[in-house]
Amino acid sequence: LKEQNISFTAIDVFENEEDLYLKNPDFLICLGGDGTILEASTLTAGTGIPVMGINLGRLGFLSNVSRNDIDLAISMLCQGRFTVSERSMLSLRNSSSPLGADFLALNEVTVSRKDSASMITIHAWIDDQFLASYWADGLIISTPTGSTGYNLSCGGPIVSPASGVMIITPIAPHNLNVRPVVISDSSQIRLQIEAREKYFLVATDSKTQNIECGKDLLIQKAKVTFSLVQLEGYPYYKILREKLYWGADKRN
Amino acid sequence: LKEQNISFTAIDVFENEEDLYLKNPDFLICLGGDGTILEASTLTAGTGIPVMGINLGRLGFLSNVSRNDIDLAISMLCQGRFTVSERSMLSLRNSSSPLGADFLALNEVTVSRKDSASMITIHAWIDDQFLASYWADGLIISTPTGSTGYNLSCGGPIVSPASGVMIITPIAPHNLNVRPVVISDSSQIRLQIEAREKYFLVATDSKTQNIECGKDLLIQKAKVTFSLVQLEGYPYYKILREKLYWGADKRN
Amino acid sequence: LKEQNISFTAIDVFENEEDLYLKNPDFLICLGGDGTILEASTLTAGTGIPVMGINLGRLGFLSNVSRNDIDLAISMLCQGRFTVSERSMLSLRNSSSPLGADFLALNEVTVSRKDSASMITIHAWIDDQFLASYWADGLIISTPTGSTGYNLSCGGPIVSPASGVMIITPIAPHNLNVRPVVISDSSQIRLQIEAREKYFLVATDSKTQNIECGKDLLIQKAKVTFSLVQLEGYPYYKILREKLYWGADKRN
Amino acid sequence: LKEQNISFTAIDVFENEEDLYLKNPDFLICLGGDGTILEASTLTAGTGIPVMGINLGRLGFLSNVSRNDIDLAISMLCQGRFTVSERSMLSLRNSSSPLGADFLALNEVTVSRKDSASMITIHAWIDDQFLASYWADGLIISTPTGSTGYNLSCGGPIVSPASGVMIITPIAPHNLNVRPVVISDSSQIRLQIEAREKYFLVATDSKTQNIECGKDLLIQKAKVTFSLVQLEGYPYYKILREKLYWGADKRN
Repeated sequence: LKEQNISFTAIDVFENEEDLYLKNPDFLICLGGDGTILEASTLTAGTGIPVMGINLGRLGFLSNVSRNDIDLAISMLCQGRFTVSERSMLSLRNSSSPLGADFLALNEVTVSRKDSASMITIHAWIDDQFLASYWADGLIISTPTGSTGYNLSCGGPIVSPASGVMIITPIAPHNLNVRPVVISDSSQIRLQIEAREKYFLVATDSKTQNIECGKDLLIQKAKVTFSLVQLEGYPYYKILREKLYWGADKRN
Repeated sequence: LKEQNISFTAIDVFENEEDLYLKNPDFLICLGGDGTILEASTLTAGTGIPVMGINLGRLGFLSNVSRNDIDLAISMLCQGRFTVSERSMLSLRNSSSPLGADFLALNEVTVSRKDSASMITIHAWIDDQFLASYWADGLIISTPTGSTGYNLSCGGPIVSPASGVMIITPIAPHNLNVRPVVISDSSQIRLQIEAREKYFLVATDSKTQNIECGKDLLIQKAKVTFSLVQLEGYPYYKILREKLYWGADKRN
Repeated sequence: LKEQNISFTAIDVFENEEDLYLKNPDFLICLGGDGTILEASTLTAGTGIPVMGINLGRLGFLSNVSRNDIDLAISMLCQGRFTVSERSMLSLRNSSSPLGADFLALNEVTVSRKDSASMITIHAWIDDQFLASYWADGLIISTPTGSTGYNLSCGGPIVSPASGVMIITPIAPHNLNVRPVVISDSSQIRLQIEAREKYFLVATDSKTQNIECGKDLLIQKAKVTFSLVQLEGYPYYKILREKLYWGADKRN
Repeated sequence: LKEQNISFTAIDVFENEEDLYLKNPDFLICLGGDGTILEASTLTAGTGIPVMGINLGRLGFLSNVSRNDIDLAISMLCQGRFTVSERSMLSLRNSSSPLGADFLALNEVTVSRKDSASMITIHAWIDDQFLASYWADGLIISTPTGSTGYNLSCGGPIVSPASGVMIITPIAPHNLNVRPVVISDSSQIRLQIEAREKYFLVATDSKTQNIECGKDLLIQKAKVTFSLVQLEGYPYYKILREKLYWGADKRN
């Protein structure tokens, strides 16, 4: 994770969170792919510091400035030729650690089985109304930002960043008639997991932890947001088309 | 289409729109399935008159009171044991008839080819930003209410009524990597259709019309809403589970 | 439809079926896309004359020689550097015209509703055992060759040409738990259609006809096959990867 | 795993494989669900001893005689009112243990990542022709018998037992345009796995093992088959309809 402070006079490299608060930069520039931005998101969430991702490899959804356009991108930043897209995040609370801090996710919270031999049962409530019991490899709660990630691989829809919703998408569900469900992000989701093993896996973006079955997981929109720089001329739908190869299909 | 005025003193049957305005009932009761409610929705949209559907056959998503529960349902209505769920609708404007009235849909606006021999190309813009060109049998723009209908048959997600979104779902798309897209319902969608034939079909709910290719279609959230009675104890997710047979899967 | 006789001494253009039988060429070369080959397939089915497709536009699954490689392709043909892939076809018999000839399809037989307002019900039997009643826009019976066509758009699997099977894939099925079904191509499929309208559409590849509801449709593997030239170095899976853009996905 | 010898004079319980060979029963009766039959399949594969499953809980695809019908089922067995359905199995050879025995699977061979943090890359060849590189949670190679299991949960088709094919279905593939592929079961599949971790998981039915990345996995139709009793009046498609709830959909 490398980040640079693009003040007009100096380029600093941040080593830790305190450093970030101390220097209070106007922008953060992330060098790396979407994964790097996901890691940075926990650091900058709620600070209001806009982040721009410069991609050294293939363009990402978040890290969408190409290495060749660095100079142009920085001059656009300085000239104010950008908007800031406030991206909603999820907060995860584990009822077995009531004093612990909540975990944040910019893309998704995923619960899944620890080994791949047997499915788990995931009971889900929305605002304390029972939704469904999924018998599946796992369940994804995704933000609009995360909709083009794991959610999409599992049959969930693409959701534009401005939509105030969350997406609940099962992973390889045994029940054939369950489908991804989109709900308002003012709702709270409660999950309870049953499994043959004692523990199951929870991932906030790519950070995993083992959690004991039977305890409640509470997932809702976080109070903080992640501020993403959108340069002029890089509209969301254009990135979508390019990333997903729309228009390039040559089946006929 | 039969509708009854459930005032406390009399049961009237409405024959037409004028009649409805004149008598200005407290509620409308629809006897019939979801299709009947869809037809009634155009009539009551914007009047604020709440509609309750009593189903003579299988329970519907909208018409969700069973024939056996009529007495109970009416007494719950009288006792105020219900909420009114304001459902968003879509308005469709055809640029070739600028003076004509907009068409309303509670479930979805569907464009599709006129005969089944050849696909059509549907160019789509969101708020004047180009989204994609679909090569498909057709395209569905669905409300949350319509999400459990044709949209669901074509791989679109279930969307809870309180979500402020629209869903854009292609029908049998030739492009393998296109996916349903969920966008904020404050957006405006513009479509342009190319086909081998001169005309294509547009359906607002189940009402179809032929429209000439090349003209713009504008679709957005209607200014009016449809007011649906939700009796206590019939929560949305329970209807969903029952209608979609969640929990009944016996694959193992 | 243009076809050329690639004998070693002369290039003839065939105008009709009689002409083809008379001249009995060693090969047919189709100039055009997959659609052109589909049309040619009815003509050459059962003659044993191998067909090679030269594509003037984008490469197809069947018409997979590029215009730039014409010289190379013809010299490979002359040198015997190819194999002949015998592709199974479907024959369709309509019980209401018992004396009429069967219709042939190289890709698929599709039944679908005549207009797009209401679904149709398709009752299906396999070898006189009841399979299912589909409530849908239509139903596709596909060969392995057709598996990458309409079948794929509707969620059916890709099936390699050497598999002795047929695929039954519903179009936008209302029943959420139905799935594409693959059966042995030694089976016979019987369909019966119920609809609000008197007629429904049947397509053998892209040729459509109106058929009256209620009559039986019998679909089985045709006695004849279509002989497709496969030049060395153009293996099926390579064409598949290129056509479907496998390996090019840039989502991350 | 409990099995009983249904000879006409005595009911024996088998404790191990040797016992089974020694007594050489006319039939085996499995008490339990499909999981129990899967376990029994390794034991009886290649012996030609037909197995009938009696289900103590919900009916299965394999174990499809209900507890209430035990007497009837046994008398049907004695009267010869059944057929034997020979089900193909898969054999898995791990190139890193060339001397070891092959592993057998009646349903499927699954490769998947060991923990759920990062995807794996699975390179696949069919008869030494490169098919694709999947970037996914895993890959399923399924028999027709296994098609209604994990394969179905991951979007693969239902395949009737008499079809001579295997199905290759990715689990949550990142590449949006890959699809399940059906190939002839006379083909050999070779897989090679790349992952961040040193090991990945391989499951033959529900038995898992850790295998080192980089080594070849060879999967093909086993020489042995599994013999399943099909009583008269329990046809495959009827079981399918009942298990998958076809016909019960109440969406409208």
